Amino acid sequence: MHQQPLIQSFGPNFKSMAALPTLKSFIDVSSDSDFPIQNLPYGVFSDPKNTKPRIGVAIGDWILDLSVIADAGFFETIHPQVTSWFHQASLNVFMAQGPLQWQAVRKHLLTLLSEDCPKLRDASSLRQTAFVAQQQARYYLPFNTKNYTDFYSGIHHAENVGRLFRDKNNPLLPNYRHIPVAYHGRASSLVISGTPIRRPMGQFMPQDHDMPQFGPSQRLDFELELGTVIGTGNLLGEPIAIDDANTHIFGFVLVNDWSARDIQQWEYVPLGPFLGKSFATTLSPWVVTQEALAPFQIPAPQMTPPPLPYLVAKHDFAYDIQLQVSLITRESSKKYTISHTNTQALYWTQAQQIAHHTSNGCNLETGDLLASGTISGETPGSDGSLLEMTANGKEPLVLSQHEQRCFLEDGDTVIFEAFCKKPDFPRMGFGVAAGTVIPATIRGTHDKS
Amino acid sequence: MHQQPLIQSFGPNFKSMAALPTLKSFIDVSSDSDFPIQNLPYGVFSDPKNTKPRIGVAIGDWILDLSVIADAGFFETIHPQVTSWFHQASLNVFMAQGPLQWQAVRKHLLTLLSEDCPKLRDASSLRQTAFVAQQQARYYLPFNTKNYTDFYSGIHHAENVGRLFRDKNNPLLPNYRHIPVAYHGRASSLVISGTPIRRPMGQFMPQDHDMPQFGPSQRLDFELELGTVIGTGNLLGEPIAIDDANTHIFGFVLVNDWSARDIQQWEYVPLGPFLGKSFATTLSPWVVTQEALAPFQIPAPQMTPPPLPYLVAKHDFAYDIQLQVSLITRESSKKYTISHTNTQALYWTQAQQIAHHTSNGCNLETGDLLASGTISGETPGSDGSLLEMTANGKEPLVLSQHEQRCFLEDGDTVIFEAFCKKPDFPRMGFGVAAGTVIPATIRGTHDKS
Repeated sequence: MHQQPLIQSFGPNFKSMAALPTLKSFIDVSSDSDFPIQNLPYGVFSDPKNTKPRIGVAIGDWILDLSVIADAGFFETIHPQVTSWFHQASLNVFMAQGPLQWQAVRKHLLTLLSEDCPKLRDASSLRQTAFVAQQQARYYLPFNTKNYTDFYSGIHHAENVGRLFRDKNNPLLPNYRHIPVAYHGRASSLVISGTPIRRPMGQFMPQDHDMPQFGPSQRLDFELELGTVIGTGNLLGEPIAIDDANTHIFGFVLVNDWSARDIQQWEYVPLGPFLGKSFATTLSPWVVTQEALAPFQIPAPQMTPPPLPYLVAKHDFAYDIQLQVSLITRESSKKYTISHTNTQALYWTQAQQIAHHTSNGCNLETGDLLASGTISGETPGSDGSLLEMTANGKEPLVLSQHEQRCFLEDGDTVIFEAFCKKPDFPRMGFGVAAGTVIPATIRGTHDKS
Repeated sequence: MHQQPLIQSFGPNFKSMAALPTLKSFIDVSSDSDFPIQNLPYGVFSDPKNTKPRIGVAIGDWILDLSVIADAGFFETIHPQVTSWFHQASLNVFMAQGPLQWQAVRKHLLTLLSEDCPKLRDASSLRQTAFVAQQQARYYLPFNTKNYTDFYSGIHHAENVGRLFRDKNNPLLPNYRHIPVAYHGRASSLVISGTPIRRPMGQFMPQDHDMPQFGPSQRLDFELELGTVIGTGNLLGEPIAIDDANTHIFGFVLVNDWSARDIQQWEYVPLGPFLGKSFATTLSPWVVTQEALAPFQIPAPQMTPPPLPYLVAKHDFAYDIQLQVSLITRESSKKYTISHTNTQALYWTQAQQIAHHTSNGCNLETGDLLASGTISGETPGSDGSLLEMTANGKEPLVLSQHEQRCFLEDGDTVIFEAFCKKPDFPRMGFGVAAGTVIPATIRGTHDKS
């Protein structure tokens, strides 16, 4: 699937994949937009005029409401049920159709939105209802996730954490280069970008104490991750072979795996993270499809030692996606960009993660989220968490003459952004995954009166 | 809720809770049945005459089909929507109604099924369709679980594991007596009792090797657990106070948290169990309600040191539930009962687990499953896993002159049973959670040709 995705996803109006990079839409798209016609990510939205959540694609500053153009018969040639796919409040029904339908819909949208196709361009009355300004929209979780798995595939993050808490000279655990380490996350507390993040209460062991305390987390942090969205799953007991793995991927979102380091550190032995993570995980609203990202595939990392055969694909690949973390503080309202990194820091590919995850027969399901693990680079300024930037709070991050941070403070807004860039291809982005920290609620758990 | 549950759950035909222990149904129930009228557990079933899954309660050797008696108008006085609750393929809609409706339905069923109430007893035509023989029934997962949490509250199990893998003299980790340790499990691979359990393939590090291998697990085990079924949840960011926790519990099932010890041991550092558990988790088909179990409440364990205030209830309690594990081998077809234990071995109560789980704001949802952790007693013959019984495979468990086990072999059937007994009260049980191990499928993950 990954070898000729551009040809497969390309419309009948176009002679060759060579046309895609220069394809233009009749919708104006500025050169710094995340959403050129080459992207077309899917999301679930509503607007003040129509408060029912439904499915759209982003283009420029607009959302094309797929429920409207499906009602108008624009997808009739694709599948008799298309209209019901796009009137849903989640992408799950559409995603469950599988890659042939995803490709057919994308091909159709590339055609419909191109500047040469008059069908939608010249339907001026329909365009009034089919396009909604992104500024007017409210977003929802784009898919319904029953199972959320969080990997640990950012190797520099694993090394940084190992150096902080274990062994400076030998920071990686023995299994790290053999298995894509992961744990099950909490699906119920996934939230859409913009949802306020309440500082969690929790139990932790303060330094130099011998009895734990319960109170607001003092070490609230973010973790920058890329989330893989599973389109179609597998039956229990029937593993996905690595060479088939990418056909199960619908697309990608940004993930902020908010972490309370003090709660996590006290609870995580021997069964792993639990309440230090489960209070909230933020997702970006737009699912960037695997097909749209195909031009930004790069060779998979060299692996030493080579992994076992079930983790070796005939043709594996990674992505060149640039990511950045910004912080807006309550005091200054200035946006400080505190990290620049890249998905090339992931040691394990998505195909390896899926092959490993299902190797024991575990069944993936439509809407499952597989987060990458924290993505940190090798150099200063490229960390994916404050834990790493501040050496676990020991070396404050200086934002300005007046402001610094060890961990997040109430009122801080954390913003993740990601984009792909290369010569002779339009910039493509993910939008944002953002959240503002609000104070802990003490009453209800602490106050027993 | 837990102080006067019998009065609350008792029907209008009865003058006092003193009548419950001697209450009899017009359905014959043998004295060794799991399902006297005092129990009335809920399940989802179908039968050869009606293959649509729907909701019933177990009584004696029969299932009362609630969809049939709801259609016949038997619940009209309770709620206008009752009929739709019981035509579902899961208990979630009914469970989401909350404890007042659970109590009202139970009260009604106690009345309808009692020997003195003619309404159903004398409706001979309706009884032909309202009762289905359990032997004829096929069972389904009784509830739809989005989030499965596995605790570690069996203190003797934690001690046994600590002695095997860590410190013989100091087996409990420092956090054990302060927090109900838990991890997120995999919800997609929950299966109903009777589902064959395919031996998982996986990666493990054989003893005295320095490179891992991939192949069928060599150390397949069971874990005996009690599962708490969440009836109603909480909003994200709004913890459940410990004194309210039991009002969120609908009931309990038996759980076999099948474990591949070799996979688990290699993968679990630093993020906890993953593929060593996620290939399958077996549930018993009948949900025994919290109300039915009320007569078997006992004082909560003494805790040293006392937990932090958010984990101290005004009136907490534990349960006196006897559990046993049996093994049927392919060779002999004999049922060997290899463990007898009791839920009194749980250090943390369900109320403490719920208060802790939500203390950070994490939202529980209807259908969530909170498993107890492996329940092992203090004495030989009371372990909840082969890992403990065989000292991690070093001391085989002798079944007969001809058979012994270190870990499970293909063809082994593991059967969990549980029941409550006390003087002057009918025996009440959980039915069984059973599964037979079938051979690994090598093709698809291992064979890359």
